[in-house]
Amino acid sequence: MKVIGDGMGDVIGRRIEDLDTPVVTIDLKAMEANIAKMQAYCDRHAIRFRPHIKTHKIPEIARLQREAGARGITCQKLGEAEVFAAAGFDDIFIPYNLIGAAKLKRLMALHGQVRANGNDAGKISVAVDSVTVAQGIAGAAQSAGLEFPLLIECDTGAGRTGVQTPAAALELAQWIDRAPGARFAGLMTFPTLPASTPAFLAEALSLLAASGLEAETVSGGGTPQTWTAHTIPQLNEHRAGTYVFNDANTLAAGTANEDECAMRVSMTVVSRPTGSRAILDGGSKTLSADRLLWKHPSYGVIVEYPNAIVYAYSEEHANVDLSSSAQKPAVGERVTVIPNHCCTVSNLHDRLLGVRDGKVEVTWNVQARGLVR
Amino acid sequence: MKVIGDGMGDVIGRRIEDLDTPVVTIDLKAMEANIAKMQAYCDRHAIRFRPHIKTHKIPEIARLQREAGARGITCQKLGEAEVFAAAGFDDIFIPYNLIGAAKLKRLMALHGQVRANGNDAGKISVAVDSVTVAQGIAGAAQSAGLEFPLLIECDTGAGRTGVQTPAAALELAQWIDRAPGARFAGLMTFPTLPASTPAFLAEALSLLAASGLEAETVSGGGTPQTWTAHTIPQLNEHRAGTYVFNDANTLAAGTANEDECAMRVSMTVVSRPTGSRAILDGGSKTLSADRLLWKHPSYGVIVEYPNAIVYAYSEEHANVDLSSSAQKPAVGERVTVIPNHCCTVSNLHDRLLGVRDGKVEVTWNVQARGLVR
Repeated sequence: MKVIGDGMGDVIGRRIEDLDTPVVTIDLKAMEANIAKMQAYCDRHAIRFRPHIKTHKIPEIARLQREAGARGITCQKLGEAEVFAAAGFDDIFIPYNLIGAAKLKRLMALHGQVRANGNDAGKISVAVDSVTVAQGIAGAAQSAGLEFPLLIECDTGAGRTGVQTPAAALELAQWIDRAPGARFAGLMTFPTLPASTPAFLAEALSLLAASGLEAETVSGGGTPQTWTAHTIPQLNEHRAGTYVFNDANTLAAGTANEDECAMRVSMTVVSRPTGSRAILDGGSKTLSADRLLWKHPSYGVIVEYPNAIVYAYSEEHANVDLSSSAQKPAVGERVTVIPNHCCTVSNLHDRLLGVRDGKVEVTWNVQARGLVR
Repeated sequence: MKVIGDGMGDVIGRRIEDLDTPVVTIDLKAMEANIAKMQAYCDRHAIRFRPHIKTHKIPEIARLQREAGARGITCQKLGEAEVFAAAGFDDIFIPYNLIGAAKLKRLMALHGQVRANGNDAGKISVAVDSVTVAQGIAGAAQSAGLEFPLLIECDTGAGRTGVQTPAAALELAQWIDRAPGARFAGLMTFPTLPASTPAFLAEALSLLAASGLEAETVSGGGTPQTWTAHTIPQLNEHRAGTYVFNDANTLAAGTANEDECAMRVSMTVVSRPTGSRAILDGGSKTLSADRLLWKHPSYGVIVEYPNAIVYAYSEEHANVDLSSSAQKPAVGERVTVIPNHCCTVSNLHDRLLGVRDGKVEVTWNVQARGLVR
């Protein structure tokens, strides 16, 4: 499709500092350590871990997560699931309300593919938060002679999707239980908010049990919520994506340290218009315009100038305030940025570069980027 | 590269309401009218118009702009310029500080291609704001036996890149004038801020004239600044990108009306968790996380529910507050969103669909998307 490449040419074996900027690199040792640490945590607490691939959208990385012990993967969009099914994954959960004939047809085809990937034992599951959505899936599944496992999404405090009360969860579970073509498979929430989640889940599970319904899976999610997942006894599964690369958000949340930030963006100072202002060679089309969820006011952390504030973005420029930096970079100097949100960065780039000891060891096509349907 | 398509299949001839969501469409009549209106304005005021292709990144659309009368194009990154040079464009301006051996090598190759595109009269020009950057380009050009036209970027009030004073513009122009390999070709600013731009330009031009230097081109930019370009007598060129599609920003700025918003995103309500909340099937990976530059608090305008506020995004969801909407959409209902910033939306999608009278007439690959270097 592209008539021209990405201006990088052959990069294997080249050192980071010899790559043209801006360029997104993934430190392989840090990523491998992140994968191992998360899996060890979940194993220690007997929580099934189902990584969310939205962060990298790269089957090769999901394979590393699976080899470490992950049980299945999470995909946010059907198009992502199709890429991972084509790459052989046999246990995919889509925590998304899938609606409409086009998507339901694709979902049924995907089911066949995933089942075959697992030698007829592969499975795909989906979350719903209304009868309208459950009805569509159940109807399509029934026509295809299938019984589809549906989890109920619970809004346990985050205020996005999900049923609002334990009673509503029960009602929907009962509807699913009665519907030919659907099977009630459990509860899920995102993100797991320790303050409000346990009470919601406990009440919902007790209502379900009283009605003879078993929630086989109770799934929580979110990277900053990871290390407290074991404090919520109802959960038997956790989904996290960001942890694999980490970013300024997990750094600011205190759930990762700088060494664990595997995603770095090498950038060049292209202008120093004033004594306190520097401009970098990438903005919202390189780093995304996502703000920090936490207190720090910057669009990303500059490793070499930790007191610098990336105070504004335009599409291809980042504006940096150096007022609080004793040392200040010159035009042409390279800096390393830890972006605010690694998931949206991956989605902007056609490939990511894996580096070990500062040298490019592997490149990955971001195969599932841009698949919004 | 992609093992799987975008879930759309063959779309030509299909009606918008039959396309799966979320999907970005461009109304062709609106786009054609936008192109004609802008060109007529510039023609009427004898301002050369040089559209910025960062908005669409699609050579076919730039050809329509050229056929309407545009004189050359603007590309923000070298990678974009390479795509448009490969598509035959012969007059490209890159208002960006290009730094480093890799980019300078590509710039010289690009020069050859663009020159050939114009039967040895094609030209590429670049903006600089420091001697450091000018020196790099002049040196590479001299080695290649070329003389490169350089414009000086002036920060006339926007606070991004650019020299800070008319005296600094003169000093840099004199440096360029003396440098083998470079030729002083004019001044540029972005965006043109009517309040502060005229005085800066007038003083710089007077200093230049007193030193015997002529600014062949004086170029302003920005879509919201378009319709006042003629009030700044120093400008003989204007660059705008957004006007071709328009968006909630130009709508809020009052420089476009809703009929002129050619880019629309068809989306589906996937959840109605509460009486006042709706969730749409796309977030920052579909619509970008760019905020409005103006007062309106929403991430985009919902055409059918003009009082609804898109108050939050996550990657694949948009949260809508319906408190002020008398009518409220049900789960499964389709809505039409005018996104905040069309330029960052194009960059997220592999293709855009051109529709006429509600039917898909053409699809375009967003050929220059993701080319950040």
